[in-house]
Amino acid sequence: MTIAHVGHAELRVTDLAASRQFFTDALGLFVSAETDSQVYLRAWQDWDHHTLVLTEADESSLDHIGWRVSGPDDLAEHEKQLKRLGVAYEWVAGGTELGHGDSIRFLTPVAGLPTELYWEVERYVESDPDMRSTLASHPQRFVGGGAAPRRFDHGNFRINDVKAEQEWYTEYLGLRHNYYVEGEDGARLGSWLAKTNLSHEIALMGNPRQDGSRLHHVAYFLDSPDQLLRGATIIADAGYKIEWGPGQHGTSDAVFLYSFEPSGHRVEIWTGGMLLFAPDWEPICHRKNPNDNGFGLAAEMWGSGTPDTYFTYGTSLPGNVGVAQPA
Amino acid sequence: MTIAHVGHAELRVTDLAASRQFFTDALGLFVSAETDSQVYLRAWQDWDHHTLVLTEADESSLDHIGWRVSGPDDLAEHEKQLKRLGVAYEWVAGGTELGHGDSIRFLTPVAGLPTELYWEVERYVESDPDMRSTLASHPQRFVGGGAAPRRFDHGNFRINDVKAEQEWYTEYLGLRHNYYVEGEDGARLGSWLAKTNLSHEIALMGNPRQDGSRLHHVAYFLDSPDQLLRGATIIADAGYKIEWGPGQHGTSDAVFLYSFEPSGHRVEIWTGGMLLFAPDWEPICHRKNPNDNGFGLAAEMWGSGTPDTYFTYGTSLPGNVGVAQPA
Amino acid sequence: MTIAHVGHAELRVTDLAASRQFFTDALGLFVSAETDSQVYLRAWQDWDHHTLVLTEADESSLDHIGWRVSGPDDLAEHEKQLKRLGVAYEWVAGGTELGHGDSIRFLTPVAGLPTELYWEVERYVESDPDMRSTLASHPQRFVGGGAAPRRFDHGNFRINDVKAEQEWYTEYLGLRHNYYVEGEDGARLGSWLAKTNLSHEIALMGNPRQDGSRLHHVAYFLDSPDQLLRGATIIADAGYKIEWGPGQHGTSDAVFLYSFEPSGHRVEIWTGGMLLFAPDWEPICHRKNPNDNGFGLAAEMWGSGTPDTYFTYGTSLPGNVGVAQPA
Amino acid sequence: MTIAHVGHAELRVTDLAASRQFFTDALGLFVSAETDSQVYLRAWQDWDHHTLVLTEADESSLDHIGWRVSGPDDLAEHEKQLKRLGVAYEWVAGGTELGHGDSIRFLTPVAGLPTELYWEVERYVESDPDMRSTLASHPQRFVGGGAAPRRFDHGNFRINDVKAEQEWYTEYLGLRHNYYVEGEDGARLGSWLAKTNLSHEIALMGNPRQDGSRLHHVAYFLDSPDQLLRGATIIADAGYKIEWGPGQHGTSDAVFLYSFEPSGHRVEIWTGGMLLFAPDWEPICHRKNPNDNGFGLAAEMWGSGTPDTYFTYGTSLPGNVGVAQPA
Repeated sequence: MTIAHVGHAELRVTDLAASRQFFTDALGLFVSAETDSQVYLRAWQDWDHHTLVLTEADESSLDHIGWRVSGPDDLAEHEKQLKRLGVAYEWVAGGTELGHGDSIRFLTPVAGLPTELYWEVERYVESDPDMRSTLASHPQRFVGGGAAPRRFDHGNFRINDVKAEQEWYTEYLGLRHNYYVEGEDGARLGSWLAKTNLSHEIALMGNPRQDGSRLHHVAYFLDSPDQLLRGATIIADAGYKIEWGPGQHGTSDAVFLYSFEPSGHRVEIWTGGMLLFAPDWEPICHRKNPNDNGFGLAAEMWGSGTPDTYFTYGTSLPGNVGVAQPA
Repeated sequence: MTIAHVGHAELRVTDLAASRQFFTDALGLFVSAETDSQVYLRAWQDWDHHTLVLTEADESSLDHIGWRVSGPDDLAEHEKQLKRLGVAYEWVAGGTELGHGDSIRFLTPVAGLPTELYWEVERYVESDPDMRSTLASHPQRFVGGGAAPRRFDHGNFRINDVKAEQEWYTEYLGLRHNYYVEGEDGARLGSWLAKTNLSHEIALMGNPRQDGSRLHHVAYFLDSPDQLLRGATIIADAGYKIEWGPGQHGTSDAVFLYSFEPSGHRVEIWTGGMLLFAPDWEPICHRKNPNDNGFGLAAEMWGSGTPDTYFTYGTSLPGNVGVAQPA
Repeated sequence: MTIAHVGHAELRVTDLAASRQFFTDALGLFVSAETDSQVYLRAWQDWDHHTLVLTEADESSLDHIGWRVSGPDDLAEHEKQLKRLGVAYEWVAGGTELGHGDSIRFLTPVAGLPTELYWEVERYVESDPDMRSTLASHPQRFVGGGAAPRRFDHGNFRINDVKAEQEWYTEYLGLRHNYYVEGEDGARLGSWLAKTNLSHEIALMGNPRQDGSRLHHVAYFLDSPDQLLRGATIIADAGYKIEWGPGQHGTSDAVFLYSFEPSGHRVEIWTGGMLLFAPDWEPICHRKNPNDNGFGLAAEMWGSGTPDTYFTYGTSLPGNVGVAQPA
Repeated sequence: MTIAHVGHAELRVTDLAASRQFFTDALGLFVSAETDSQVYLRAWQDWDHHTLVLTEADESSLDHIGWRVSGPDDLAEHEKQLKRLGVAYEWVAGGTELGHGDSIRFLTPVAGLPTELYWEVERYVESDPDMRSTLASHPQRFVGGGAAPRRFDHGNFRINDVKAEQEWYTEYLGLRHNYYVEGEDGARLGSWLAKTNLSHEIALMGNPRQDGSRLHHVAYFLDSPDQLLRGATIIADAGYKIEWGPGQHGTSDAVFLYSFEPSGHRVEIWTGGMLLFAPDWEPICHRKNPNDNGFGLAAEMWGSGTPDTYFTYGTSLPGNVGVAQPA
């Protein structure tokens, strides 16, 4: 009973039309399905039906982040484990989220992160003849509009107790703990985990205000730093706010850019960085450098200092009241 | 009396709609004006009204390549020189080519290259509010569709007598001779010239068949090799034929890609390479290497061998009958 | 009992000094250990003691390609399986290959590919203070000399019977079959497999001459197409032969460059391309296009045609007599 | 009587050995000549003997910035003009600065910028056979160490009266005024000028402290944003301080990175941006946006906010006492 990889996120957004425009025109995602209140999106080489759902709502928040399990019997096994652990969960019928079969949703018991496990998923098939590629490795034609990321990458949260949450993910979902940041006092300031060879599929960063859990950002992956800078120009010239970057994370060695979509969610595009293959990988410890304004070398190698909002702003999770506001 | 820089080209095309789609969707140029039989195009940072005109015609050919002169009195001076040299010319009334004032057109006396000299030009002003940039240095918003070159760069011809044509350009139009290729027998195989600091604004390459002059290609400039490869993927995935590249010219040190637009003209996108600043620049001599399939190191530093069509195929010039066909 | 990932290769080389210079100066690898007859190399972010061994020999050949197993008990389990299958193997004592513990070596029963399984490996620790990085994610300082790949990537072979060999790897080593090329007659022309999320860790391509197995190339991974083109310039300007590229594989969607190191082995640098996460991945079938000179769209998306040597030239494997020569 | 282009700078440095190491190992320049107290440097494709001189001194300052004139008679013409204007100057004998002929040095009358005019210059010839390229367009082999810029680009100053200095340069040295930044009160905050098609060869930025003139930085040009980020990693991982960037200037549209070399001079690497060809170019006016921390959109398009030191820190000019210190 294992999970296979992180697969998608559903974001509730206060301005569906504006968010849709950001994700299609500036970020360069593609709409694979659409209803009056939802937009289903994927990057050009995402093989599944979608990797992002935007759902109209009164408050911008994360509805859930979804992990695909490793086989058809794994959902039942996960249900048993959740029962044994006394974690409340619910089954969501296949088709409720378009393109997906039945799934289990629950809040992680430590930080309350809204999590979905699912197995069945439609593979994307291009229905527009003009957008079909002659290449079998291209689920659609590469047209290069917007930042044009290749694929969905990861989700990132700010939470009160990083260490406890990381240990829960490692013990019960089997995620490898890849690297972490530790304060001078030994406090755990952030942890990055993955099931796959990615440097992380989920990040847990400490909430300096200790006022609960927030979605920090969702991230898409680009092929090169050059594409990331080109994306930055597109995003800036379209009038969207860039919060931070380009910079290079000292932890993952990846090049990053954070911007805000119109409903308030932070979105990262990133590229490069390390993959991890060792089956006996020991998590790297990054110690906070007191001369830095936050995570120090652990957070960035070059690029300018971390803006305050990076530490304080996030969007809501179900059950959280009162989202921290941008400075 | 001098010229300032190469400024635009007018291509006659047999399939205006298909050519328009190539230049807008795949190459990423923008339409600045349009009539039933013409499309005016420019790259996103071209400051002038247009840098390319597509004109519907029965045969794909170059109508003219245009050079902007250095001041308002220079056209009259050039007219005097053409008279003195006995070169036939005609005045074209301002507005005939949209966005331009009066111009002089003539065929160069050696190779018959259709050349225009002009002074007055409208500066491009973005009329679509959604496409205006907040940056004064952006004549329009950067949206990044297609290969998205920054600017028009140069024109290239195959002609019978490279040396004579180069000397005419240098003597009468004042172009600096920047580098050339010489065969083992001392024959001039190609010459690259510019008035500006570019490595070349016009290239003259020998015609191995000695059957007259052809347009070899027009070129647009991109900001990076990465953008060029991204453009290659867009062009290939849209089903257009890539003839050669990516490769690196050993002459200009620029990275290149050649493709064919639907009416048959060869189009280059390129990036990098050298600028030349020395007022006493001595043209670099590249000697043909007999072990190579053509220009040898002079033509490419890496990238695969030059395809035969590169030597044999070009599109027509006014007065030329019978264009060499692709292999 | 599983394997974890491909980890290294040992190449026998006829000119150790010249090969060492290629791999350090042009490719940008680093020497982690050295004896009179061997050079141990790694890319700057390879975490293990080495990912390539050069061993002086009378003939240039592949000594072995090494796969790390998933846990300390897996070697014994693999031994049992090899016994059961009647495959000859030998134990190699720890330290014979520096930095590694005991290993098992055998020839795969179908194609005779020299394979090593190993578990214990020293993690690289930078001993030169000037080369230590302040970043815990950098096993050494990034200095950027040569092509400067980030990590070892994969090995590639030409063999007589691709389908049988692929099935053996999938059944007995548990490799996922990710994509393959099929001829018009349904013949299997190539298969790409991986245990990790990489598009492949080993490739098996058909030998058109049907005269046995050859090493086709080993590959290192770079962060961007721009770095690959920069690497191409370094390799070309140092006088090494580039065989093919840059181009983009239509199969993996990765950008590639092949060159020959001085002892005759083909070496690939590549970047980009897809990662695969689906636990129920169905291998993509690329059908050979009869209008192409070989693998067609499957082999390249843009970039010039495949040179003949790519199909005919490889370096020897143990037991093979007579290596195909370059055209 | 004109100047042709900016050609080099001489920096006085307090720690010659450390500065030499920065410029060779991290920046990737090459030593073309060396004495006990001087190091002559050039980028790999700089055609002249040198583009930077480091001279050991008690204080780090700019000795002079050098402009090449357009012909052999221009120095005498410039001398006449300086006499007529009553500007003090001195002749420096050929060979005093290695590789150069006689030159005239003077302080500009408004801001006192130490300026050299020269004509004769040795073209660089590679004397090391191992560093010679087979390409005539490569004055030396491209080996790619360090940031590896292609060529020297420009110098930048902070001065009290931007407008007056700009007008002097335009009137007496014939530089084209390309773009400028204006405060809300109409005050001139910065001007960028060039003789060539570069967006600028010299920049004049206002000194907010109004305490005289400082060298702000000298700049070298790279081929791509990707190379700039790679250079940033090399510079950061070598322990040098990066002050600002990567970011994109909203004025020139170029991508930038500023770091400090060990003797305290600010050094920029940059790439991309616009070239200007119009003979009747009207300078672009960038108005300061009051919501920004300085130059607003004019200074950067994306990338994080301008650090205070960018406005306050510079290195000394001859005659200036007391250099502003970094915050």
